[in-house]
Amino acid sequence: MEKIKVTAPASVANVACGYDIFGFALDLPSDELVLQKRNDSKLVIHDIKGAQLPTEPDQNVATVAIAALLNHLGSEQGFNLAIEKMIKPGSGLGSSASAAAAAVVAANVLMGSPLSKEDLVQFAMAGEIVASKKPHADNVSPSILGGFTVVRSVEPLDVFKIHHPKDLEVLIIFPDVEIKTAEARKLIGNQIPLDNARTQWGNVAGLVAGMINEDWNLISNSLQDVVAEPVRKYLIPGYDQVKEIVMAHDAIGFNISGSGPCMFAFFKGSGLASSAIPGIQKVYDQLSVKTFFHTSKINTEGTIVI
Amino acid sequence: MEKIKVTAPASVANVACGYDIFGFALDLPSDELVLQKRNDSKLVIHDIKGAQLPTEPDQNVATVAIAALLNHLGSEQGFNLAIEKMIKPGSGLGSSASAAAAAVVAANVLMGSPLSKEDLVQFAMAGEIVASKKPHADNVSPSILGGFTVVRSVEPLDVFKIHHPKDLEVLIIFPDVEIKTAEARKLIGNQIPLDNARTQWGNVAGLVAGMINEDWNLISNSLQDVVAEPVRKYLIPGYDQVKEIVMAHDAIGFNISGSGPCMFAFFKGSGLASSAIPGIQKVYDQLSVKTFFHTSKINTEGTIVI
Repeated sequence: MEKIKVTAPASVANVACGYDIFGFALDLPSDELVLQKRNDSKLVIHDIKGAQLPTEPDQNVATVAIAALLNHLGSEQGFNLAIEKMIKPGSGLGSSASAAAAAVVAANVLMGSPLSKEDLVQFAMAGEIVASKKPHADNVSPSILGGFTVVRSVEPLDVFKIHHPKDLEVLIIFPDVEIKTAEARKLIGNQIPLDNARTQWGNVAGLVAGMINEDWNLISNSLQDVVAEPVRKYLIPGYDQVKEIVMAHDAIGFNISGSGPCMFAFFKGSGLASSAIPGIQKVYDQLSVKTFFHTSKINTEGTIVI
Repeated sequence: MEKIKVTAPASVANVACGYDIFGFALDLPSDELVLQKRNDSKLVIHDIKGAQLPTEPDQNVATVAIAALLNHLGSEQGFNLAIEKMIKPGSGLGSSASAAAAAVVAANVLMGSPLSKEDLVQFAMAGEIVASKKPHADNVSPSILGGFTVVRSVEPLDVFKIHHPKDLEVLIIFPDVEIKTAEARKLIGNQIPLDNARTQWGNVAGLVAGMINEDWNLISNSLQDVVAEPVRKYLIPGYDQVKEIVMAHDAIGFNISGSGPCMFAFFKGSGLASSAIPGIQKVYDQLSVKTFFHTSKINTEGTIVI
């Protein structure tokens, strides 16, 4: 095969209590990548639609990820890349992760599929370092593998999927303001109170058990964050109001998606998610902030060839 | 019913990564309590075998726990208590928790079983405050409920059991030196590095998913502790040597039980646990430390009437 088109989903990282370890994939939005073999060893991005991103191979997450994969394979194969971004950079939906995910999955297929999807996570992660400076797998894992994923460890990398209830519906709320991940990380500091850490790992245990056992009460009680939300929510206009509205519409839980500004809410069953939208729209109309909404199931496939 | 005899199992708290939140019950050792109604409102401990413990009703965990339960029920019923301790105080096997567990379960039955076992955890916890100053449910939960338990939250109290593999075998190693829980807690401090907290909650997620899905690799990889073990292990003579021996005997994992000095190891299947004992015995013979061993399954019943 010489040419391939893949699509990689947006993802929500952290998921309240699971700072840097939990993530899940969304049905929409998703990025598309067309990858084509070249006759030389160059990596050339000849087209990027939907966002302004660097095209230098050592500065774009997609080409850096492919270079890491090729290096591992001992290959000097070159590729042309055409990227269509549907996930806005800086939205908190794992935009750079989905580009890296698409890149490594596509390159792996064109190289004859030597590696499993699980193996590819580390190379997508290498690509994502360009965007976030530190290695993170909490967006690339769900973007590649689909589903609800846990990054148990980054070094050595250990990532796994857990079961989730099939009737879980997600509402994504995207107020169009920019938050730099690196700035958002600084707010948290390098030390945290032991009491907060303990609260967090109690909720982590609860969310994992709740998802696997489809215990909605436990999921709901566990969707709390005492580490990032208390400091980061101030970067997101209208945060407390939006939370109040979605919880009043019977959301199972609500929190920041990644480092924001996107927020997510979980609902049990279809149809409830959209009922919360008009009230939230009103909040952002009053704040004069442009806002987008997505309703989605948890995407179970991750990056796929189309 | 006027008189009842109950037995409450020892328990292992923390379980490597789950500081203050994980615990499981053991088949042996276990404490016994005979509780008998009185014609007045007094709580009288007329016999304690196996350990030197206070008999004043406001200083013994069993009577304090019963008093908390009676207060909740609005009852002035008095009781006589005879306690037989098989779990040595200060061993790290939840000795005070098992006494409190036995007390509330027995009193609840003699009061006509108005409360569920789950409801009783909070009153046992109230009793345990006498021993450990701060409210903890990570020993009383497994001691009452049996199985592998998670304390998601202490305030409000939220405790649940998770599935565990039936062929999991536990080795308890008890070098007979005393460690005060309060002293052991001080070693950890009030702040922890965010990196360590993240490592811990990654492993918490891994251990919960590993236990529920019977994924032995995941259980093994997740049985790590970067919070308590690195500082507390120095309180336990021979710790590193013992760990090396049990891991060389194909243990799935090893760590401190509660705040020590007891240690636990997990093995897959029966018979492996005892193979590690002679080597460990030799270590403690050289250190001139008296040592006891227990092999056990995870006890699934918790406190029971006998």
